Amino acid sequence: MNPLDPKEFRRQGYMIIDFLADYYQNIGKYPVLSQVEPGYLRNLIPDFAPLSPEPIETILQDLQQHIVPGITHWQSPNYFAYFPSSGSTAGFVGEMLSTGFNLVGFNWVSSPAATELESVVMDWLGQVLKLPKAFLFSGSGGGVLLGTTCEAILVTLVAARDKTLSQIGRENISQLVVYVSDQTHCAIQKAAHIIGIHPKNLRVIKTMKSTSFTLSPESLSSAIRTDVENGLVPCYLCVTVGTTSTTAIDPLGPLCMVAKKYAMWVHVDAAYAGSVCICPEFRHLIDGVEDANSFSFNAHKWFLTNLDCCCLWVKDPASVIKSLSTHSGYLENSATDSKQVVDYKDWQITLSRRFRALKLWLVLRSYGVANLRNFLRSHVEMAKTFEGLVRRDKRFEIFVPRNLAMVCFRLLPSAVAKISSNGNGKVQNGGFKTEDVANETNRRLLDSINGSGTVYMTHAIVGGVFVIRCAIGATLTDTTHVIMAWKTVLEHADAILSY
Amino acid sequence: MNPLDPKEFRRQGYMIIDFLADYYQNIGKYPVLSQVEPGYLRNLIPDFAPLSPEPIETILQDLQQHIVPGITHWQSPNYFAYFPSSGSTAGFVGEMLSTGFNLVGFNWVSSPAATELESVVMDWLGQVLKLPKAFLFSGSGGGVLLGTTCEAILVTLVAARDKTLSQIGRENISQLVVYVSDQTHCAIQKAAHIIGIHPKNLRVIKTMKSTSFTLSPESLSSAIRTDVENGLVPCYLCVTVGTTSTTAIDPLGPLCMVAKKYAMWVHVDAAYAGSVCICPEFRHLIDGVEDANSFSFNAHKWFLTNLDCCCLWVKDPASVIKSLSTHSGYLENSATDSKQVVDYKDWQITLSRRFRALKLWLVLRSYGVANLRNFLRSHVEMAKTFEGLVRRDKRFEIFVPRNLAMVCFRLLPSAVAKISSNGNGKVQNGGFKTEDVANETNRRLLDSINGSGTVYMTHAIVGGVFVIRCAIGATLTDTTHVIMAWKTVLEHADAILSY
Repeated sequence: MNPLDPKEFRRQGYMIIDFLADYYQNIGKYPVLSQVEPGYLRNLIPDFAPLSPEPIETILQDLQQHIVPGITHWQSPNYFAYFPSSGSTAGFVGEMLSTGFNLVGFNWVSSPAATELESVVMDWLGQVLKLPKAFLFSGSGGGVLLGTTCEAILVTLVAARDKTLSQIGRENISQLVVYVSDQTHCAIQKAAHIIGIHPKNLRVIKTMKSTSFTLSPESLSSAIRTDVENGLVPCYLCVTVGTTSTTAIDPLGPLCMVAKKYAMWVHVDAAYAGSVCICPEFRHLIDGVEDANSFSFNAHKWFLTNLDCCCLWVKDPASVIKSLSTHSGYLENSATDSKQVVDYKDWQITLSRRFRALKLWLVLRSYGVANLRNFLRSHVEMAKTFEGLVRRDKRFEIFVPRNLAMVCFRLLPSAVAKISSNGNGKVQNGGFKTEDVANETNRRLLDSINGSGTVYMTHAIVGGVFVIRCAIGATLTDTTHVIMAWKTVLEHADAILSY
Repeated sequence: MNPLDPKEFRRQGYMIIDFLADYYQNIGKYPVLSQVEPGYLRNLIPDFAPLSPEPIETILQDLQQHIVPGITHWQSPNYFAYFPSSGSTAGFVGEMLSTGFNLVGFNWVSSPAATELESVVMDWLGQVLKLPKAFLFSGSGGGVLLGTTCEAILVTLVAARDKTLSQIGRENISQLVVYVSDQTHCAIQKAAHIIGIHPKNLRVIKTMKSTSFTLSPESLSSAIRTDVENGLVPCYLCVTVGTTSTTAIDPLGPLCMVAKKYAMWVHVDAAYAGSVCICPEFRHLIDGVEDANSFSFNAHKWFLTNLDCCCLWVKDPASVIKSLSTHSGYLENSATDSKQVVDYKDWQITLSRRFRALKLWLVLRSYGVANLRNFLRSHVEMAKTFEGLVRRDKRFEIFVPRNLAMVCFRLLPSAVAKISSNGNGKVQNGGFKTEDVANETNRRLLDSINGSGTVYMTHAIVGGVFVIRCAIGATLTDTTHVIMAWKTVLEHADAILSY
């Protein structure tokens, strides 16, 4: 048995390439949201691992027959759920190469190219984003590739915690306060819990529809003042550029000004919107980043880089390294001793790491910055088209102004009131408020759309309102899919409203 | 521009398969340890990302010319460093499929097959390892695939911390004690720091050469008693089955007996050795696991599953979920509400996750359990061969008894004393103890071997002694490579000793 026999590797490799090329060719034919029931798989596959080898042909057959129906097709052109996970040929072949080399680049010496390419590519991308020099290796900062934004937040939060505690004493951890808005990603709540921030010190500042669910510098300032008066210590502020629910853009510059007074760590979570900031016309979204401490975005969301790939830049790598470095006899080496190299293990939670830089390098080179900009712009244009279609129908509303390539919409309470008052529908208005009925009807509408398998959208609940999110950005999506998506919405809305 | 055009995807996919098949074919020709100098890459590639697309042919040329020389070849048959990262065709094509589907399986509904296959495969593997039912979904526990052991430790440590704090109050976090040996992986130190365990409460228990650097139940018991007398609260014990430095096997059963008295969480870190426990003759290494709370091993080390893939089983998933679950409006769904499904986001640090189960499923089916056992056994046999060769040369010693497929050896102080006393060598004995000279000479020997590029081994420092580790397990390694490796050691030793 030679599990890396080149001949067999080539044969199976070709087969999988063919399988996936066919998959992309036919992907529009699958229901986007998997229609299986919980527990569907256990009865379809054996209870025990096989003792003897099985041919790849059999496994691929099972894959097609049992696994594919259970997949929600994130690469479908009719996928508009959550945020996109936009794969590409370049991202894919970059990951193949990384998986093929299968090296573990925890420090420089374990594979110098893995570290050095990562540093170079992070500087490339930082320049494309016009990040200040202070975030780049060519300046005084640096970038690192992590798996997800959750890791970026945990890494920076630990660094911020330790920095503050080194000033006030580690016994005072219960005084540290972390500031977020009620629209900030739940990752920060988890990270804060993990590092021991008291739940009552996660300051969740309320946002309002009137300010498009952005974090208000005044509200932040007022919350901090109260905390300081109560003897608490501001430690970390997470500013979101493109929230998950509505792609709200927190006003980075003014928020940084507030944070500056208290010497807090400011992290910019641009998980979704960071990509589009490579376009000059969108760069203003992160104006003010020069006053932040760290910035991250997910290249695996909307930057054609297959999962997983979160780009994090920090101004002061030393503060991260101080919190996360490890020393073991078995990892000692003269390159590390020379202090001439980056050891990325000290920039992240885990020791082992894959060679993620390859796929980002492939994406940047294979498509080029100009094409990448146009690609992102095309999604914004498609979102405008969808928005226009929604606006044309008076039964619907655009719930919050569209910022980028995601449209938040819903059936208006006024449209829904008709069905709930005619007494024929399943939606009963007995004692419920109109808004509750609207929420319930929009939920039914979304379930109905997704149950059809034609398109997949998801929802958000903002300010108590259930809205449908249409997030455009899947690689294969073009305007025809967007128009068809709206037709699907209308069909299901008509059916529900005319019930 | 269509970045997922099936035709171009197929063309480039084939090219990369060919590139990698050729790479495996010729891998023996590369220096195993990259011989580049720090900063080598920055001058070889442009300072800025390209504005226009570049053809894959150009990129591959750069890859071969600039990146490959900076790679340390973990897949080389002459790779004996750290621990193996044993790739395989099955692991590779499994990762390809996962990257191709590019789905984000944070909860069940986001792709039911990703969750369900993971649960099934973790039960398969748990059965193969003869883990008690209490760790399996078919019992009352369950398994999850994480990236690395560092994550497994962080996940279980947070759960253990919260469990203990729920009894003694969260204000008493400074009383929690975590127990490890001085051979435990540094991951736990980092994880303990991250979750806020006071550094003085990381109880690092000294091990001794006389007991092969294993954690002594008596020492543990005594340390706990002292802590409890001092008002501290035992929280977590990490037992290692196969330490990084010497593959020491902590006595799991007796250690669990000690921990049981104090209701501590016991985690079994079998990152390296877990794989081989699928062989009946090695299963005894984890006897006693029935009394542990969690067990993890890295399938990406010695189980033919390409990076990254850490398998973690827990007896009480609820305790992990309690610590790590998140709730967001935009993630609500009826499957989750039904409580009929696993949402793996609540079993890990991050939200997003790749479809790792595919590669483990491919590995188990493509090779079958019987072949996998034989494959692992073959590495143990090769290690015996290497051990035999070392023993034949009186200038060397096997530093600690070989347990599995790793041999710890060194030039004896007595052999080294000759060169240091003849005054001709660079190693001077002025004021140094013999052991220091031996350490320095073994370090020089290892540098000399690795500098040749013929093989790559790494070192450990145990009990103050510098030992050379020969870790066998790279997929392409066979007995001829092992014999050649020893010849290489001898050549370089001869050169140094006869200087």
